[in-house]
Amino acid sequence: MKFNKVLESLVNYEAGKPIELVVREHGIEAKDVIKIASNENPYGCSPKVVKAIQNEAFKMSLYPDDSMYELKEALAEKYGVESENIIIGSGSDQVIEFSLFAKANPSNKILVAKTTFAMYEIYGKRTGTTILKTPSHGHNIQELSDIYKNNKDVAVIFLCLPNNPLGECLDKDDVFGFLKEISDDTLVVIDGAYQEFASFKDKNKKIDPKELINTFANTIYLGTFSKAYGLGGMRVGYGIGDKEIIKSLHKLRSPFNITTLSLKAAIEALKDEEFIKSSIVSNFEEMVKYEEFAKKLDIEFIPSYTNFITYKVKKDSSFICEELMKRGIIIRNLKSYGLNAVRITIGTKEQNDRLFKVFEDIYRG
Amino acid sequence: MKFNKVLESLVNYEAGKPIELVVREHGIEAKDVIKIASNENPYGCSPKVVKAIQNEAFKMSLYPDDSMYELKEALAEKYGVESENIIIGSGSDQVIEFSLFAKANPSNKILVAKTTFAMYEIYGKRTGTTILKTPSHGHNIQELSDIYKNNKDVAVIFLCLPNNPLGECLDKDDVFGFLKEISDDTLVVIDGAYQEFASFKDKNKKIDPKELINTFANTIYLGTFSKAYGLGGMRVGYGIGDKEIIKSLHKLRSPFNITTLSLKAAIEALKDEEFIKSSIVSNFEEMVKYEEFAKKLDIEFIPSYTNFITYKVKKDSSFICEELMKRGIIIRNLKSYGLNAVRITIGTKEQNDRLFKVFEDIYRG
Repeated sequence: MKFNKVLESLVNYEAGKPIELVVREHGIEAKDVIKIASNENPYGCSPKVVKAIQNEAFKMSLYPDDSMYELKEALAEKYGVESENIIIGSGSDQVIEFSLFAKANPSNKILVAKTTFAMYEIYGKRTGTTILKTPSHGHNIQELSDIYKNNKDVAVIFLCLPNNPLGECLDKDDVFGFLKEISDDTLVVIDGAYQEFASFKDKNKKIDPKELINTFANTIYLGTFSKAYGLGGMRVGYGIGDKEIIKSLHKLRSPFNITTLSLKAAIEALKDEEFIKSSIVSNFEEMVKYEEFAKKLDIEFIPSYTNFITYKVKKDSSFICEELMKRGIIIRNLKSYGLNAVRITIGTKEQNDRLFKVFEDIYRG
Repeated sequence: MKFNKVLESLVNYEAGKPIELVVREHGIEAKDVIKIASNENPYGCSPKVVKAIQNEAFKMSLYPDDSMYELKEALAEKYGVESENIIIGSGSDQVIEFSLFAKANPSNKILVAKTTFAMYEIYGKRTGTTILKTPSHGHNIQELSDIYKNNKDVAVIFLCLPNNPLGECLDKDDVFGFLKEISDDTLVVIDGAYQEFASFKDKNKKIDPKELINTFANTIYLGTFSKAYGLGGMRVGYGIGDKEIIKSLHKLRSPFNITTLSLKAAIEALKDEEFIKSSIVSNFEEMVKYEEFAKKLDIEFIPSYTNFITYKVKKDSSFICEELMKRGIIIRNLKSYGLNAVRITIGTKEQNDRLFKVFEDIYRG
């Protein structure tokens, strides 16, 4: 059977290896496996969310309120915008997909940093668009600006702030300066999946969605419940943008794109900001240990504004990841990004201490 | 901002109105609202599934096993196929989307019955393809065959067996006869969302996925956990097809396209077939009452092989639905399908008895 030509160029996203796989392939018991590979919240989610889901589990047979009225109202209040400025996605991934399908096509281009969230390129390829990348791995404003000026037909630009999988983050002032150069007809997606971490560590990194979209009507801000809010498994993200943009993206949203329990979980998670703050404080306390550990082993690392850290290792990154996995520790190999590096999610104190011990054995061994 | 031209022709799916909306708009307490509009299982889901989700709610922070190993293995065993014959979607809706994006494009066509599941057309339009429809509302093999023969470039055919929102169902022998006429390069999607109901009521309607795909390599069978399995809110469906087709569709699947709790719920639901059987038995016991009620009120109905029944009412269907809603009962108006008809989900005995009473008042009043 023949398929549409665009499928020939598609590759699948390489997801972090699940605990179940390590159990199956290495015969290690699930309780002995540590997964610090996918930037999930190591403290789980708010106990109040767990309780709410336990109480409402019997509602699994019912489709969710497809208008997502309550969640949108809560997000609108949090950010000082209106419900009509908000679209809910199955993870912010899906809002990336909507943004690309709304604007990108085989006769235009999109612009991204060389090493950034893989889904921009994966969804981009599905539209048949051309993908322009900066020479540098991370976000370099000068390079982005030069490429933009030299290409007249850039439909979408993605800025991942802070950047996954590298961890660096542009200053807000630099971002706003760059945005002034961009045409009204280019959609700029500000991916704030890790903004809760970056804005806590350094106020200069903070992007306020309301200020962003009121200043630049051609932008959309992406947020997610998967990282700081500890709901990675529930697939809820959102886009905040000008009403005209949001209305167009809604045409691409399928009904019931998040589950009944996901909707409930997100609504409840917004009510427990204390949990989020405590997770973020612990994250940066533990992050310091990762920096010290890297220095001790003479490993170059990228200062991180997220809940993970990227080590530019001197031994083969695939070897390190494979050896760690045999010992029940899952981290993320960045070989497929063209880097001999590993990305490690900052875990709990216990998880991190075990990682340090085993990693050192492998690295020095 | 300009968007891709295809967006101009897109409309959103009109989802069944949620209970929350009736509560908000009509000031009726949630406990007093009956929703028999979206073909959810009125008996909920298996209590074993509820318990499993309560026990694993704390895992919401973790992404699901993206290989979906355990669920695929369980489905493979159930249907006597291999894991590689299976793709999991966020509802079978998403497998419809994959099928269309894999095959349909602006230079070819797709073929559907005039009145069938709305998502075939909605996703079809996103690809820019041309949508061919039969003159008759339901599935008419002769009409489908004639249209197919008169159009050389039909990329995808959808057969909804039994058909939503009408409830009728083609015999398996007629379907297989039709499939013999279809080119190897046309993908035929057999949507079995309600097959559990149809095959219980009449063995002649039963489509066995293994026999189907082994006889016709250009077909894909869709199943869902949303209807008989009572997990409409959890968004899990699947496609079963030739490995080559499934491999191609996987290129369009985004990572983590179902939630961690959805994956668990589906796995557990497959272990409690008794619950499914009991739901289906009750469904057809109650269905008889809907047929008798229609006869009593001299309303024409379509004999149904599903968990809903379609009444071709003589009063205005919008009036009936609106009046019912004011009294806290949600059913589905089929006006947007060009029919003065309503679709009612077969509820529990209590729900149905209340519907009969209120409906009769409105219809005769």
